[in-house]
Amino acid sequence: MSDKLLFTPGPLTTSPAVKQAMQRDLGSRDSEFITIVRGIRRKLVDLAGGGFEAVLVQGAGTFAVESVLGSVIPPNGRLLVAVNGAYGRRMRDIAARLGIESIGLEFDERKPIEPSALAGALNRSGPFSHVAIVHCETTTGLLNPVDSIGKLVSAAGAAFIVDAMSSFGGIPIDLHTAHVDYLVSSANKCIQGVPGFGFVLARPERFSQTEGWARSLSLDLFAQWRGLEQDGQFRFTPPTHVLLAFARALEELDAEGGIAGRYARYRDNHRALIQDMQALGIPPYIAPEHQSPIITAFKFPDHPRFDFARFYSMLSDRGLVIYPGKLSRENCFRIGTIGHLTQRDIRRLCRGVAEVLEILGVKSPE
Amino acid sequence: MSDKLLFTPGPLTTSPAVKQAMQRDLGSRDSEFITIVRGIRRKLVDLAGGGFEAVLVQGAGTFAVESVLGSVIPPNGRLLVAVNGAYGRRMRDIAARLGIESIGLEFDERKPIEPSALAGALNRSGPFSHVAIVHCETTTGLLNPVDSIGKLVSAAGAAFIVDAMSSFGGIPIDLHTAHVDYLVSSANKCIQGVPGFGFVLARPERFSQTEGWARSLSLDLFAQWRGLEQDGQFRFTPPTHVLLAFARALEELDAEGGIAGRYARYRDNHRALIQDMQALGIPPYIAPEHQSPIITAFKFPDHPRFDFARFYSMLSDRGLVIYPGKLSRENCFRIGTIGHLTQRDIRRLCRGVAEVLEILGVKSPE
Repeated sequence: MSDKLLFTPGPLTTSPAVKQAMQRDLGSRDSEFITIVRGIRRKLVDLAGGGFEAVLVQGAGTFAVESVLGSVIPPNGRLLVAVNGAYGRRMRDIAARLGIESIGLEFDERKPIEPSALAGALNRSGPFSHVAIVHCETTTGLLNPVDSIGKLVSAAGAAFIVDAMSSFGGIPIDLHTAHVDYLVSSANKCIQGVPGFGFVLARPERFSQTEGWARSLSLDLFAQWRGLEQDGQFRFTPPTHVLLAFARALEELDAEGGIAGRYARYRDNHRALIQDMQALGIPPYIAPEHQSPIITAFKFPDHPRFDFARFYSMLSDRGLVIYPGKLSRENCFRIGTIGHLTQRDIRRLCRGVAEVLEILGVKSPE
Repeated sequence: MSDKLLFTPGPLTTSPAVKQAMQRDLGSRDSEFITIVRGIRRKLVDLAGGGFEAVLVQGAGTFAVESVLGSVIPPNGRLLVAVNGAYGRRMRDIAARLGIESIGLEFDERKPIEPSALAGALNRSGPFSHVAIVHCETTTGLLNPVDSIGKLVSAAGAAFIVDAMSSFGGIPIDLHTAHVDYLVSSANKCIQGVPGFGFVLARPERFSQTEGWARSLSLDLFAQWRGLEQDGQFRFTPPTHVLLAFARALEELDAEGGIAGRYARYRDNHRALIQDMQALGIPPYIAPEHQSPIITAFKFPDHPRFDFARFYSMLSDRGLVIYPGKLSRENCFRIGTIGHLTQRDIRRLCRGVAEVLEILGVKSPE
């Protein structure tokens, strides 16, 4: 049985070899596994351009985000979260839940965060100890200007937290130019592993001062790092099979030419998607200059016969899994172009979309 | 390449079919996956004897424990934790970190929790809203008397939290007789899945009152349950492959005759272990009447030539992975008898132990 193709922001369609890597049971305290974990952490630091500490955090990517917010902001810290989508909002929600003093600075979901507005907030409502943004807002697929924001944050003396969940490994980021202090991402995004843990890249100058600040035992980022450093082991049982898959996924990233090579394929995928969907009369929701090649939101066709539930399930029946929308105001669906997918798969998806729209009786609006 | 056998408390040696189940990429919001998750939750409730809600929590088992302690104890709640090993201590540590008012009642690590002493503490230092114990202390492998403690807790009007991480699915527990309100366990223990999530069985009468109490967003047990109930989906990305493995593992548990059948095999494994180790002059650390068939602690042989690091690695070289100790005072190692293992594997391990002791020049003390 061949699996459906996943045009989603993760879990993704992964390579056969990545899945094959999970056919082993390794002890979590055994030397072979410890060596693999050390290799993963070293490679993540390499991908960050060096000069960071890599900490792996079990659970969903959101757990890793919460481990950062809950561990690196001191009791008297103040957080500014710039919000232009669901994942920015989620960071604000986490801070609120943890009792961290925070301000959410809201932007239009269709537009990148404006550095000048952020600078205004830093002046007006500061000082802030920490500023957090999402690099690629998976809500829409738009990219926020991490470089120019990072410069402002650094100039204001605050630490810069970047949720790069759906971009790290698939879009080049110079963490040093962008003054990133903490970057969060996940196993099952652009590195193309399977889900089960997230990871944090932390700048040692900041991170080394955070001992004892964590509001949770499970999500204590500093204690997690110290455990991994001391004996190479996780404090609590790691998802061993998922880590084996990730080690293999990192090798495949290298084989593809690293982040630059992967970025090129994702752009090809995305270009094919935009072309074919435009031809079907379905334009992307976000302006092209703000759009990432990771995931793209499309407004529901403005036609009385369009029914998303039927559209989704008819595509799924054809082995093509797309992603529902998550916008606060607009009815959208989303199509991911990451994972073990090529332009050929994208073309196949778009043929499926054309076929289903025809069956539904949805004509493209002229 | 054949993997080493894991005589550990998890990650375990799993069946080939459990690992094979991970050779698929399913979308976390797709109907096939949602159906599988519903089936898993239903089956867990069946294993509990009905009348519970099953909530799956991403991450290590400790994350699920923290999700219970952090979500079901109200702001003005008071927790009594009975401690006779590392996992009881960990619950006390979690409560302290979360700012939950709690008392740790310490017992000898070699002895089960004494119900009369617990009753005394309930009277003397009460009232407590919640009492927590570990069913099978993986530190030593000893079993705590969950039934008699549960009766006392219920009589005192408190809610009863049981960490049954290493026992649920492998040792029969009547959750109703034992008045258990919250039971926590994990995918990679007696149900013999792979690591990546834990689960909570919650009694609805208590659990339904806990909305809004959680101290964390990621580990909010009530919100996690509501998400799973509303549309069958996880709030945050689940470890899809690990869940597929778990669904298969539940089928294998059924095929073995359910919990009773599995318990019988574990007892056979454990009996073989004790016999062979006794014959080597290495008696178990815990008295037989307190010992579970899950994992067994053995004191280091009292011999100058015994070197645990060499002992461990020579066994590992023979494809036999044992587990280090975790006792606060005694030098012990541990041998797990759970997972896809039979008496034949246990006998093979013990032959390996004999061989290695001979090479090390460790004679059995007469």
